[in-house]
Amino acid sequence: MTKSLPLSQRAQRTEEQPISYFIREAFENPRLISLAAGLVDAESLPTEEVRTVAESIFADPASARAAMQYGATQGYAPLRAKILDHVLALDSVHAKDLNLSADDVVVTTGSQQLLYLVGEVLIDPGDIVITEAPSYFVYQGALASFGARTLQIPMDDEGMQTDALEELLVQLERTGELARVKMIYTVDYFQNPTGLTLSLPRRRHLMELVRRFSKKQRIMILEDAAYRELRFDGPDVPSIKSLDPQNEYVILGMTFSKPFAPGLKTGYGVMPPELRESLLRFKGNHDFGSSNLNQHILDRMMSTGAYQRQGDRLRQVYRAKRDAMLAALAAEFPPISGVTWTKPDGGLYVWWSAPRDMQTGFGSPLIQAGLDEGVLYIPGELCYEKTPDVPTHEARLCFGVATPAQIGEAIRRLARAARAVGLPRLGMKAFAGCRG
Amino acid sequence: MTKSLPLSQRAQRTEEQPISYFIREAFENPRLISLAAGLVDAESLPTEEVRTVAESIFADPASARAAMQYGATQGYAPLRAKILDHVLALDSVHAKDLNLSADDVVVTTGSQQLLYLVGEVLIDPGDIVITEAPSYFVYQGALASFGARTLQIPMDDEGMQTDALEELLVQLERTGELARVKMIYTVDYFQNPTGLTLSLPRRRHLMELVRRFSKKQRIMILEDAAYRELRFDGPDVPSIKSLDPQNEYVILGMTFSKPFAPGLKTGYGVMPPELRESLLRFKGNHDFGSSNLNQHILDRMMSTGAYQRQGDRLRQVYRAKRDAMLAALAAEFPPISGVTWTKPDGGLYVWWSAPRDMQTGFGSPLIQAGLDEGVLYIPGELCYEKTPDVPTHEARLCFGVATPAQIGEAIRRLARAARAVGLPRLGMKAFAGCRG
Repeated sequence: MTKSLPLSQRAQRTEEQPISYFIREAFENPRLISLAAGLVDAESLPTEEVRTVAESIFADPASARAAMQYGATQGYAPLRAKILDHVLALDSVHAKDLNLSADDVVVTTGSQQLLYLVGEVLIDPGDIVITEAPSYFVYQGALASFGARTLQIPMDDEGMQTDALEELLVQLERTGELARVKMIYTVDYFQNPTGLTLSLPRRRHLMELVRRFSKKQRIMILEDAAYRELRFDGPDVPSIKSLDPQNEYVILGMTFSKPFAPGLKTGYGVMPPELRESLLRFKGNHDFGSSNLNQHILDRMMSTGAYQRQGDRLRQVYRAKRDAMLAALAAEFPPISGVTWTKPDGGLYVWWSAPRDMQTGFGSPLIQAGLDEGVLYIPGELCYEKTPDVPTHEARLCFGVATPAQIGEAIRRLARAARAVGLPRLGMKAFAGCRG
Repeated sequence: MTKSLPLSQRAQRTEEQPISYFIREAFENPRLISLAAGLVDAESLPTEEVRTVAESIFADPASARAAMQYGATQGYAPLRAKILDHVLALDSVHAKDLNLSADDVVVTTGSQQLLYLVGEVLIDPGDIVITEAPSYFVYQGALASFGARTLQIPMDDEGMQTDALEELLVQLERTGELARVKMIYTVDYFQNPTGLTLSLPRRRHLMELVRRFSKKQRIMILEDAAYRELRFDGPDVPSIKSLDPQNEYVILGMTFSKPFAPGLKTGYGVMPPELRESLLRFKGNHDFGSSNLNQHILDRMMSTGAYQRQGDRLRQVYRAKRDAMLAALAAEFPPISGVTWTKPDGGLYVWWSAPRDMQTGFGSPLIQAGLDEGVLYIPGELCYEKTPDVPTHEARLCFGVATPAQIGEAIRRLARAARAVGLPRLGMKAFAGCRG
C-alpha cells in the first residue's frame, strides 16, 4: 500500500491553472475557434529572421560555441545593455535620468519567471498584494501559491482607480495592516484581461501613493508591461518606471514573447539593486541562467533591426485582428442587447460584458452553448479574487491567435450562443438585419 | 530617505551562491586556470550538429512556426516520448517494467529547475532532507532557501554509506522526527563533487530503506543522474529509478547540458504521477513551459542520432581530460605528501584531500597561494552542511573546462602552492625528481 505524498504547504496552496482546461478543449475539438488561449498569431512568427540570425551565429565557431556554453545567471551582458537602451528609448529618457545601468536588468525565462521571482523575493504567507480587478489570472494563481492576500481595485477606462487604491491604503493603515502591503501589481498597457491602459494622471497618483504609504517598509510596484510594444494606435503613455527617478519603487517586467516570438521564452526585468540582488539568488537556485542560445539570438535581432521590424509587422497584424473583432462585436451586439466591450488601442484582448444576469463561467449555459457553436472564451470570473460579489457576466476575448475571418465567425458564434441562452430578442432582430 | 525592502522569509534564507566568487575571479585574472567552475569543454560543443538541425527546422515553415510558438508546460510531447525511451534504454528495461509512460516525463530549464521544483513540492521549513556528505553545493543553497534541515551521510568508495543512513532513520524514528523526512537527495553517478558512484548493493539498500521507513508518509528519493551519460570506463550501474517498479518513490533528474550542450538549458525529470501533478502546477506559475525552440532542436537531435554521436565524442574528450588530471596528480603528489584523491570512471570532478591540517577554504594560505600561482579550485567545505566538524582540507577539481595541457599545468601550480604553504618536503623531492 503506497503511502501518501508529503506535499509542502505551498504545494497545497498551488492550484491547477484553469488555462489547462482551455488547452485541452482546443486540442479535442478541432472545429472550435478559441478566443481563450493567449497564444500569438502563427503566420507572422519571425521564422525567417530567426533562421538568418541562427545561421550567422553558427557560421562563426566562436559565436557558435559561446551560444552553446553556459551563460551568466543574470543574462548575456550585451543583450542586457541593448534591453536597457530599448526600454529607455520607449520613454525617450537616458539611463542617468532613471539612475539605471545594465546591471539593473535581469533576463528571465519569459516575463512569467520574472513575476514569479519577484513574488518569491517579497511575499510571505499573509502579506498583501494589491492588483487590478480583474487581473492576469495566471499571476493570481502564483500569488495564491505564495500565500498572498490579494486585494483588488476596480478599473474604469483609465485603468486602476487610484482613488479607490488610496482609500484602501488609508484603511489598511487604520487597521494596522499597512506593513503587510508588499506590492502593487499592474498590467498597465492594454491589460490582460481588459485591454485597458493606465492613464498618465493615474500613473503619477500611483507613484505618489507608494511614496506616501511606504512607511515602515517600501511598497513596490510591479509594472507588467508585457503588451506595451503591441500599441496599434492612440497616444503612448510613459512607463511607471520612468516616474521612478531613483530606481527605488518600480520593477518593470517586459518580454520578447509578445512583440517577437514566444518560442524563445525570454523576458526581462529592470529593478532596484537591492531587489535584484535577492532575485538573482533565487534565479541561481532556479536555473542559474535562462537559455543562452536564445539570448544570443535575441541579441543579434536587436543589433540588426530585425527586432524592430518584427514589432512593426506584428502591430499591423494585430491591429487588423482587433479591428475585425470590434467590427464583428458592433455588428452582432447592438446597444439594445445590453452587451458592452472595451476598445483597446493595443495588446491581444477585448473584455466583453453581458447583461448582469447572464452567467459566463464554467458550467454556465453560455459557455456550453458556445462550445456547441464552436467558440471558447475565458470566463471573466477567473480574473477576480474569489469574493461573494465577483462579477460573473464577463469574458476575455483574445484576438491574437485566430485569423480576422475566424474572429468574425467566432463572434457570430458567440452571438448565436448568447441569444440561445436568452440575450434579448431585439438583439435577434438586429442580427437578422445584419445578415439579411 | 528610501525605506528598506520588505524581503520575504525565504529571501532572507536565500544566500548568494559561492560560485559567483569563482566566476568573478576567473574573469578578472585571465592567466588563471580555473578548476573551479563546472562548465564544459568548449571545443567539443555540438555547434555543427545544432546548426544542421536548426537549418532543418527553419527550412520548413510549419516546423519553424511550431518552434517559435508557445509550447506546453510539461514539454514538447514528441521529445518527452524520446526521453522516456532513452532513459529506459540506459537501463535496458521497458516502460511497463517501471509503470512509466511519457506522461511521467517533465521537461525543465536544465535539471536545476527540476531540483528546485521538487523542493517546492515537498519541503516546508523544518522538514528534513538527507544528502551525501559532501553534496552538490548549489542544491544545498536551494534546500536552505526552502528552510530544509539537511542531514548528511558520509561516503566511501561505494558512495553514500547506507548503513549510516539506516542508523540515522532509526534514530529519527526514535526521536519522533521520521515524519519530517521528505526526501533523500543523491547524485548517484560520478557525483558532484566527489566523482564517486553509488554501488548497486547500496542502491538496493537505499530502496529498501525508503520502503521500510515510509510510515506516515512516503520518503522520496531524488536521483540526480546528471553525469550518468559521461561514463568513460568501469562498469555501468542501473539507475535507482529502475529499482522502483511501481513508479512510487524515485524522481529521476537528468539533463542535456552535460551530455550535449548547456546553451540549450534543457533538463528533465521522470517521476510518480501525484508528484508530477503538483510539480506541473508550480511550473505553470514559473514559466508555463521551458524554451520551445530548444526542445524542438533536441527532439531532432534524438531522432537523427546526433545526440548519441555527441555523447560518444564527449566521453572521449573528457576521458582524456580525466586521464591528464590523474596523471598530473600522481606525478605531483606522491604518497608521502599525504595527499589523496578519487579516481572517477566518469563525470567532471576529482575530489582532492590534503593532509588534515592543511586548510583549503576562502582566506586560507593555500587558496591564496593557488591564486598567486594561477590556479583555482572549489573549497571542499562548501559542499558540507555547516557543522562544527566540517572537513576543511578538501577541494573539488573540475577537469571539464581546461585542456589536458592546462590541466597538467594547473595541477603543477596547485602542487607548488601546496608546497609553498607547507606540504611535506619529501613531496618537494619527488617533484624535483619528476621534473628532472
